[in-house]
Amino acid sequence: MSKTNPGRFFEDYRIGAVIRHAVPRTVTAGERALYHALYPARGALYSSDAFAADCGLAGSPLDDLLAFHVVFGKSVPDISLNAVANLGYAEGRWLRPVWPGDTLRAESRVIGLRENSNGTSGVVWVRTTGLNQSDEPVLEYVRWVMVRKRDPGAPAPDPVVPQLAPAVAADALVVPQGLSFAGYDFALAGEPHRWGDYAIGEVIDHVDAVTIEEAEHMLATRLWQNTAKVHFDATFREDGRRLIYGGHVISLARALSFNGLANAQMIVALNGGAHANPCFAGDTVRAWSEVLDKCETASPGVGALRLRLVAHKGAAGDLTLRAEGGKHAPHVLLDLDYWALVPL
Amino acid sequence: MSKTNPGRFFEDYRIGAVIRHAVPRTVTAGERALYHALYPARGALYSSDAFAADCGLAGSPLDDLLAFHVVFGKSVPDISLNAVANLGYAEGRWLRPVWPGDTLRAESRVIGLRENSNGTSGVVWVRTTGLNQSDEPVLEYVRWVMVRKRDPGAPAPDPVVPQLAPAVAADALVVPQGLSFAGYDFALAGEPHRWGDYAIGEVIDHVDAVTIEEAEHMLATRLWQNTAKVHFDATFREDGRRLIYGGHVISLARALSFNGLANAQMIVALNGGAHANPCFAGDTVRAWSEVLDKCETASPGVGALRLRLVAHKGAAGDLTLRAEGGKHAPHVLLDLDYWALVPL
Amino acid sequence: MSKTNPGRFFEDYRIGAVIRHAVPRTVTAGERALYHALYPARGALYSSDAFAADCGLAGSPLDDLLAFHVVFGKSVPDISLNAVANLGYAEGRWLRPVWPGDTLRAESRVIGLRENSNGTSGVVWVRTTGLNQSDEPVLEYVRWVMVRKRDPGAPAPDPVVPQLAPAVAADALVVPQGLSFAGYDFALAGEPHRWGDYAIGEVIDHVDAVTIEEAEHMLATRLWQNTAKVHFDATFREDGRRLIYGGHVISLARALSFNGLANAQMIVALNGGAHANPCFAGDTVRAWSEVLDKCETASPGVGALRLRLVAHKGAAGDLTLRAEGGKHAPHVLLDLDYWALVPL
Repeated sequence: MSKTNPGRFFEDYRIGAVIRHAVPRTVTAGERALYHALYPARGALYSSDAFAADCGLAGSPLDDLLAFHVVFGKSVPDISLNAVANLGYAEGRWLRPVWPGDTLRAESRVIGLRENSNGTSGVVWVRTTGLNQSDEPVLEYVRWVMVRKRDPGAPAPDPVVPQLAPAVAADALVVPQGLSFAGYDFALAGEPHRWGDYAIGEVIDHVDAVTIEEAEHMLATRLWQNTAKVHFDATFREDGRRLIYGGHVISLARALSFNGLANAQMIVALNGGAHANPCFAGDTVRAWSEVLDKCETASPGVGALRLRLVAHKGAAGDLTLRAEGGKHAPHVLLDLDYWALVPL
Repeated sequence: MSKTNPGRFFEDYRIGAVIRHAVPRTVTAGERALYHALYPARGALYSSDAFAADCGLAGSPLDDLLAFHVVFGKSVPDISLNAVANLGYAEGRWLRPVWPGDTLRAESRVIGLRENSNGTSGVVWVRTTGLNQSDEPVLEYVRWVMVRKRDPGAPAPDPVVPQLAPAVAADALVVPQGLSFAGYDFALAGEPHRWGDYAIGEVIDHVDAVTIEEAEHMLATRLWQNTAKVHFDATFREDGRRLIYGGHVISLARALSFNGLANAQMIVALNGGAHANPCFAGDTVRAWSEVLDKCETASPGVGALRLRLVAHKGAAGDLTLRAEGGKHAPHVLLDLDYWALVPL
Repeated sequence: MSKTNPGRFFEDYRIGAVIRHAVPRTVTAGERALYHALYPARGALYSSDAFAADCGLAGSPLDDLLAFHVVFGKSVPDISLNAVANLGYAEGRWLRPVWPGDTLRAESRVIGLRENSNGTSGVVWVRTTGLNQSDEPVLEYVRWVMVRKRDPGAPAPDPVVPQLAPAVAADALVVPQGLSFAGYDFALAGEPHRWGDYAIGEVIDHVDAVTIEEAEHMLATRLWQNTAKVHFDATFREDGRRLIYGGHVISLARALSFNGLANAQMIVALNGGAHANPCFAGDTVRAWSEVLDKCETASPGVGALRLRLVAHKGAAGDLTLRAEGGKHAPHVLLDLDYWALVPL
């Protein structure tokens, strides 16, 4: 018997099954420093213990996306090792900050299954939860992936397609306990723009750009203990190129969005997202955002913006999202929909 | 209104104005580990808590240049985003060690302004101070940059050119409280050479070399939250090359200088410096030093050396500094003038 | 007199001499995070404080190989700066876990000397010990290197060739105090295979692969404060290629071996090892293991496997070890022999 993990195939998933993912991970100030070396992150709340304390927190939490990547990484060996494609995200919520010293683990519940008509693969929906060392959930999200069948002759399961919210509702957003933007220091944060300065439909070109190197995306992806071969092994794909982990592009675009959204401090929900086209080393990544919605919260001085975050490898200032026919334009890498907390 | 930061132009500076730079930053053992991964740093005081304790400190501080880079990085969006050139440094002093867990912020006072005769740019002098979470200054330095004008028709300000000391005076050097080299362990530090073994005029070729990769200088420069586009965006310059942050070359050269200056433990003053020629990935960097001056201090066993540190991309052993006409030779990258503390 | 370190030559070593290596090093959660960014390490005991606590430890120690690299790095300036070749390892034992915050130093005793018949070089055997801030040994190993003579005319010393054990004996393995695998959580650890599931002679192909970049191996090798020029200076070798530090390949192969050996948690002995062929950036590294021996220990639930770990740059699935004539095949990079602790 082979002792290596072959990954799960479509017929290995059962509706309602809970998969406890392996290898818990303690995250520290070391991961935080690496996050800042890998992405041009400048959000003051994640950069400064003093700034975070002034916002009512015990200290600076680890970046919301760092928590996401670690939890996502745990799920890869069980969910997406044999995935043909990562199809989407929905109903993502950050439920509690992750602090240096916390130990994260993850589990996923299978909530949807539908075999493809070609009989060789199917779509699996899972709701993944990240938990800390006290078994408190820190985040949850739904993702769905297309997974190969081991045996094309295996019978198709009864199709179950979950009903997913198009966006997390405003009253379902979780604001971290104690958070207050009542005494928010806009000068230290880097920009004067407050919640009221952003209008629905407004588009912001984040101006800056980063050219990605192989070493960088591999350092990141290893740090999240993501084991997908395609990110590390130059001999794996026929074209000899390593595919950059989609989450690397998310973090890069989010960090670039500081320039214009410096006060969009905390991500609290992931409404949806598509990795529209593959990203490779050598690509120069730019980002723009669109304000999709706004709401207030019950916490002092804390509002929320629903934002579309687009990463692309096109020319500076090219804000095209769609090609003819409605598909994402070929230079678009990421089309993400999230809620962020912003001072009123 | 655009929400992104266009940077300041020459006419945006006023003599005496104090600019409070954004995004405070907590630095930890994570930044320290990255510093050691990015540069071949071997100074015992910055490598070992035990060694630092034996020298009278509470523990190993973060590298002096790490503090410099973080403070410098904070100032970039306000001072040098539209800079044509970084012209010089003077009167730099380290005033207090930076410890893991400290939060740094920075502010700059405009101390000089002089429009260039072409009317399209001018020189701005600022005195930048880095402060910790207790608002204690940790370092200060003057730098001057050439900055574009937004509007060539804007009137020129009255020229103010500050008088800057050619070097920090011996009696102005600040030795960290408690520091003693009375029981200094030369074997553990790596070399037997003490203050008295160095002669003014002595030149030391540091022998080692490092070839720089794109990923390395970008990891470093992001870690210091330096936002200058030219370091990250391969499409920004016409030749498609990213310019390496000058501070990366400073840290690299300083680390290389261990071999011959292992006991030049702490940097306490920056007298001046020129980034003589641009550095690009693929360059192999070497370093040599010249002893410019010497003094004793009031602290037990602690002397100081004033050193010229030259980084170059020429052949091994090429110690040429100047080309015909007195300009820096084309292979010289850095010509830095600093004071370091050395055991007597 | 030159102040830089020329390294020791063959005639500088004396049997019985103890060399105290320079530059002690405090290792922290920062080094731990970097280890996980540099290698695809997933061993649960080194990933999670909670998992380590469940195994009876105070928290998650730093990776055994991280300790090895730091101690090895300290010895380079004194032992292998003028080495022609790193010939072998023997009698390596990990004696005590290294915790975040520990300060490591190293010393080596010369235990063997034999001049080569050509009169221009000789073999030096040293037993190197790593010690923590309380002067407790954390690991020890013998290595032997071929070192150039400064003066070919210098007289040859009386040859002393130490008798080295072919493998560390089962009863000499040191199990960390308190370690218990009695309540080991195989699901969290990532694989169900226990000590009893491995048979002597069994071969495991670890399936995964990583393509190495220049920046990665240099970040790692600097972090261990290894000063060998050949790893950093692209102009040093005639072919313009930097040689990857052999320890980088060890850590990479060990991390890849998670897939099939996820429960081989702790390395407790290094029986031998050969860096069979040089490794360069661009190489895609794969690994396979062979079970060489098995033993139980006195600690609850703790067994040990003696494993051959082979790293190679050949095709996926190529498990060839030897070429005709018995030499290592040209695609083999590493042939390592170690003991690891595994739950019974």
